[in-house]
Amino acid sequence: MPVRVVAFGGGHGLSASLRALRSRAADGLDLEITAVVTVGDDGGSSGRLLAERDALLPPGDLRQALAALADGREITQRTAQLLQYRFAEIPAPGVGGQGPDPLVGHAVGNLLLLGLMEMLGDPVQALDHAAAMVGARGRVLPMARHAIGIEADMRGADPERPYEVVTVRGQHAVAVAHGHVEAVRIDPADPPVCQQAITAIDEADWLIFGPGSWFTSVLPHLMVPRLAEAIMKSPARRLVTLNLATDNETSGLSVADHLAALHRYLPGLRVDVVLADGKWVGEPEPVRRAAEGLGARLVLAPVAVADGRPKHDPESLGVALVPVLGAAR
Amino acid sequence: MPVRVVAFGGGHGLSASLRALRSRAADGLDLEITAVVTVGDDGGSSGRLLAERDALLPPGDLRQALAALADGREITQRTAQLLQYRFAEIPAPGVGGQGPDPLVGHAVGNLLLLGLMEMLGDPVQALDHAAAMVGARGRVLPMARHAIGIEADMRGADPERPYEVVTVRGQHAVAVAHGHVEAVRIDPADPPVCQQAITAIDEADWLIFGPGSWFTSVLPHLMVPRLAEAIMKSPARRLVTLNLATDNETSGLSVADHLAALHRYLPGLRVDVVLADGKWVGEPEPVRRAAEGLGARLVLAPVAVADGRPKHDPESLGVALVPVLGAAR
Repeated sequence: MPVRVVAFGGGHGLSASLRALRSRAADGLDLEITAVVTVGDDGGSSGRLLAERDALLPPGDLRQALAALADGREITQRTAQLLQYRFAEIPAPGVGGQGPDPLVGHAVGNLLLLGLMEMLGDPVQALDHAAAMVGARGRVLPMARHAIGIEADMRGADPERPYEVVTVRGQHAVAVAHGHVEAVRIDPADPPVCQQAITAIDEADWLIFGPGSWFTSVLPHLMVPRLAEAIMKSPARRLVTLNLATDNETSGLSVADHLAALHRYLPGLRVDVVLADGKWVGEPEPVRRAAEGLGARLVLAPVAVADGRPKHDPESLGVALVPVLGAAR
Repeated sequence: MPVRVVAFGGGHGLSASLRALRSRAADGLDLEITAVVTVGDDGGSSGRLLAERDALLPPGDLRQALAALADGREITQRTAQLLQYRFAEIPAPGVGGQGPDPLVGHAVGNLLLLGLMEMLGDPVQALDHAAAMVGARGRVLPMARHAIGIEADMRGADPERPYEVVTVRGQHAVAVAHGHVEAVRIDPADPPVCQQAITAIDEADWLIFGPGSWFTSVLPHLMVPRLAEAIMKSPARRLVTLNLATDNETSGLSVADHLAALHRYLPGLRVDVVLADGKWVGEPEPVRRAAEGLGARLVLAPVAVADGRPKHDPESLGVALVPVLGAAR
């Protein structure tokens, strides 16, 4: 029997988690991996595809998850590399040279996912095909069937009114804003979800939250009523992988605050394991107490890259996950 | 030993030829297929990618050849369908709606080939990877290592001066111009070629020319000095598949004129077989004589689609090719 794992998140954090799981699967651990990915990105290439082409879903985070799950064959690794390839500004404007090149900034995989979604009309079919193209060791699903908005009430986001709470709209704006997040919401409040994601949650052995941008990639899943309901009902164990450092949106938030936020957005959420890097977590006692507040034990393991950057190393993260996930069986 | 076939051309004509060969390969005929594709397209999506992004090669004809060679599995057929999917004008301009959508008119496969060529820096590596993505039953190579220009001296292309010869520049302009083509040239006159194409020609059992736009897809290969030299030296037999009807650029040209043009642009070219559809070729005697002038026998076979359009049916064309190619062994 495989260990069925559902990983929630978006962006680089989810990628690290998926690469960790994929490396263990490649090493023979029998894992059935499902990624449930945020669909709130409104910046960069994804944002342009939403605005200019009415894309069903922002493809960026989905593309990153697919590339992370690509199997190790040379051809699928190269296809994954192609999906991640981003058209850069070119030095010479070429034969024509009429104004800015409209492809600059788009990742090939975003255009490919856009094409698949338009051609097939169904985001899950599109993602399943893209997964087959990279030989993905797992499935990538969106957290909702269409793009959602993310907004946050933030204190101090407007430098001219540092004590006022203003509403910042859009995942990109929230992620880069400075200030203290008082509350986060998704729009619409009850988006249509993928039945396939619900089924994966129902049948999972483990649900994995984080690492990642806490307010814009990790917590939004808990705000989708039908996902929250499935998460609460699922018999699966739950693992939270903590971030190594805070980013703009979580500046001023302690590690314990990160854990508390899970409870705030999904009251009653029970957690089994909190995984953190001993070098980065600081004084472990408050973290241990916060973990215990969710019903979880704290597991400390070296999961960061060796060069000192606050970045998860997929190989080390995978090694740390094995005894935890193995305990489910 | 497989029968090694090199098919020259571009666009829909080459696609028909490749689909015919692929269908026979799928049926167990041991074929090693290489397509050598025109790289003169300067219109539509390809033209924009040349002008705006300095694309190494116009990807359109290469993409069509790759899609034609895709094997029959569901996944590779769907990937081929994705490569051919073209972003259409969308009815509602979406959230933003700021001006025309820059993706409209691009085929996904053109963007994918552009990304591969930029990422890998080498057109042949890029094409070989794209071929692997669609499980191509054969190899697709460009007729030159960078884009070339096509120009034609045409009488009557300017409706205000119907008897004058004017130079029409660009494959697209030549293909759609009305008037009589007096001469066609490529620019540069001696472009760098793929060594892999030369090797394929050297080792071929059959070289196949046509069907396709005669002046802009079939004849240009003969104008590339190093390809012409390889074609002349190759011990392979040569097959010319005639078009079913004339298009703009060949209006006023008889079937015999089509064959004569091969000799004009590559004097001394010997042909073994001319394949034509008896229903479309008209009175066969002049065609037979023109074929014999090149040293070829005329083979008449029903190779058109059944509905009466002037379009090759890949299945019928494949059936007609089997006894011809089989005779090579």
